[in-house]
Amino acid sequence: MFFEGSEKKVEVIVRAGSVDLRTLGREFWSTVVQKANATILSVIQNDACDAYLLSESSLFVWRDRILMITCGVTALVDAVLHVLEHFDTDDLLFFCYQRKNEYIPSLQKSSFEEDIRKLQKHLPGKAYRLGSLDSHHYYLYHLEKEYQAQPEDTTSELLMYHIMGPTADFLRTPNQTADETRRRLQIETFLPGFQIDDYQFDPFGYSLNAIRGDRYATIHITPQSENSYVSFESNLDMEQEGSALFAHFVELLQPGSWDLMTFNCNPSLARVHATKRISFCELGLDCGFEIRYQHYQTRENTDIKAYKL
Amino acid sequence: MFFEGSEKKVEVIVRAGSVDLRTLGREFWSTVVQKANATILSVIQNDACDAYLLSESSLFVWRDRILMITCGVTALVDAVLHVLEHFDTDDLLFFCYQRKNEYIPSLQKSSFEEDIRKLQKHLPGKAYRLGSLDSHHYYLYHLEKEYQAQPEDTTSELLMYHIMGPTADFLRTPNQTADETRRRLQIETFLPGFQIDDYQFDPFGYSLNAIRGDRYATIHITPQSENSYVSFESNLDMEQEGSALFAHFVELLQPGSWDLMTFNCNPSLARVHATKRISFCELGLDCGFEIRYQHYQTRENTDIKAYKL
Repeated sequence: MFFEGSEKKVEVIVRAGSVDLRTLGREFWSTVVQKANATILSVIQNDACDAYLLSESSLFVWRDRILMITCGVTALVDAVLHVLEHFDTDDLLFFCYQRKNEYIPSLQKSSFEEDIRKLQKHLPGKAYRLGSLDSHHYYLYHLEKEYQAQPEDTTSELLMYHIMGPTADFLRTPNQTADETRRRLQIETFLPGFQIDDYQFDPFGYSLNAIRGDRYATIHITPQSENSYVSFESNLDMEQEGSALFAHFVELLQPGSWDLMTFNCNPSLARVHATKRISFCELGLDCGFEIRYQHYQTRENTDIKAYKL
Repeated sequence: MFFEGSEKKVEVIVRAGSVDLRTLGREFWSTVVQKANATILSVIQNDACDAYLLSESSLFVWRDRILMITCGVTALVDAVLHVLEHFDTDDLLFFCYQRKNEYIPSLQKSSFEEDIRKLQKHLPGKAYRLGSLDSHHYYLYHLEKEYQAQPEDTTSELLMYHIMGPTADFLRTPNQTADETRRRLQIETFLPGFQIDDYQFDPFGYSLNAIRGDRYATIHITPQSENSYVSFESNLDMEQEGSALFAHFVELLQPGSWDLMTFNCNPSLARVHATKRISFCELGLDCGFEIRYQHYQTRENTDIKAYKL
């Protein structure tokens, strides 16, 4: 019953005028998703973006950029290689491939090091690790090319571990509905005006894509008590909206520990109570992004029992 | 330059009268050690025990029991299998094989799961994990057989991560001497009356074996800043002596986090300052040992920089 919630992620930005990524169409993106061993469950669209909900996480496609996030034992790197075959490297303005350390790395099809050996054949890049090897950490490989990000191009990832409390108990009860999960998460309140697409997995698990103009948010929940993991990621301006959003999720899901990974923003965490930061890393990438990785512990993990293998 | 400090460990107790393990001699134990891809550096002896200092950690041999600890990328399980070939399983009273989660598990020759699949062919046992998969955790496989441990048969392991401060800086300076390292660690003060054998590795690293009657203590230091790790293990009565010893090492080495694994004892940690427990597991084994695993965080790990791979 083990399911790896920890995600792999890729973001690609192409040169304006080189290709409109949305025109490649669902069939193309369906093949890309299949290369990662995932499938498309559904799609929502607006003027700016196509948001695909996947069997393992999400794919967002804008005219000039894609963001793909996959969890489980998916092979995101193979999907990325398939995408790269269709583009001249000169047309890539920005490329960043990331992996959160997994709960059980030995179950993965490849290590981060193996992934970057494949990517390096196509793209000159640099790889980094943020955070400590003996605890939560984050790997990142990015194209070594100068790039000037737009001011509104910020990303925040809130990664929550060991959730507990009534909402966690609800999420761990089999056969919930997406409507009820969405209501419990208070999505309409905290993501006002967003078009929503969500899915309740059987027997557990929940995914949500949300888009409003060129803004996105996505939530993925693995509630199983031994290895619970909930991610919330968005390009909303978190210096404005993050404090309330992060406080909401941390209060609701009561994670034993949580990480915040930010690109070109530094949201206030003043409203998030009772936490102790145990790791912090900053990194300025050559491609113009300032990354901050922070790992917080909220309490003693009393829910971790000796586990019979 | 990466060196894995995290250790594998095995403890075996044989039935009185079945064999005197010490009489098997250095040649036999040298072969055992070689099976793990380690070598014997030196040995000290007293009436109760032979203590071998290894290229990767330590081996202690008493008449009726052995304790072997190895770090790096050693294959302790292969050494164990070689030992098991020489004994009738009926003559084993107690068997316990342990692995601390490694900093970089992918560099290991085998996973814990692979090790226990090998062991299960020889010994019926049960496997457990203590601690959380996304942080420090400890694996244990033990022979499923009732056993009544002697009252003085207690073990404590203090495992320290991310050491800092003047002693850590000293340990990270190449080409120190064992004499100076031993003096800095104040071994004579904290292990009075013990016979000592120690070794300073080139350019870094330090190992120490200490015996007094049937009591032992062993220290292994991997000081490298990205993955520093120091272990102190002993069968001293830590409910009497542990408070001062643990406070000494934590004060001296200033670990960012540390774990305490105890068998049949529960030392006071009152004198260890400024720590926050973030994980705790208790487990009573069928073989009569009460295990407690505790993971403490002492500070924000400010020494963890973004690391270029």
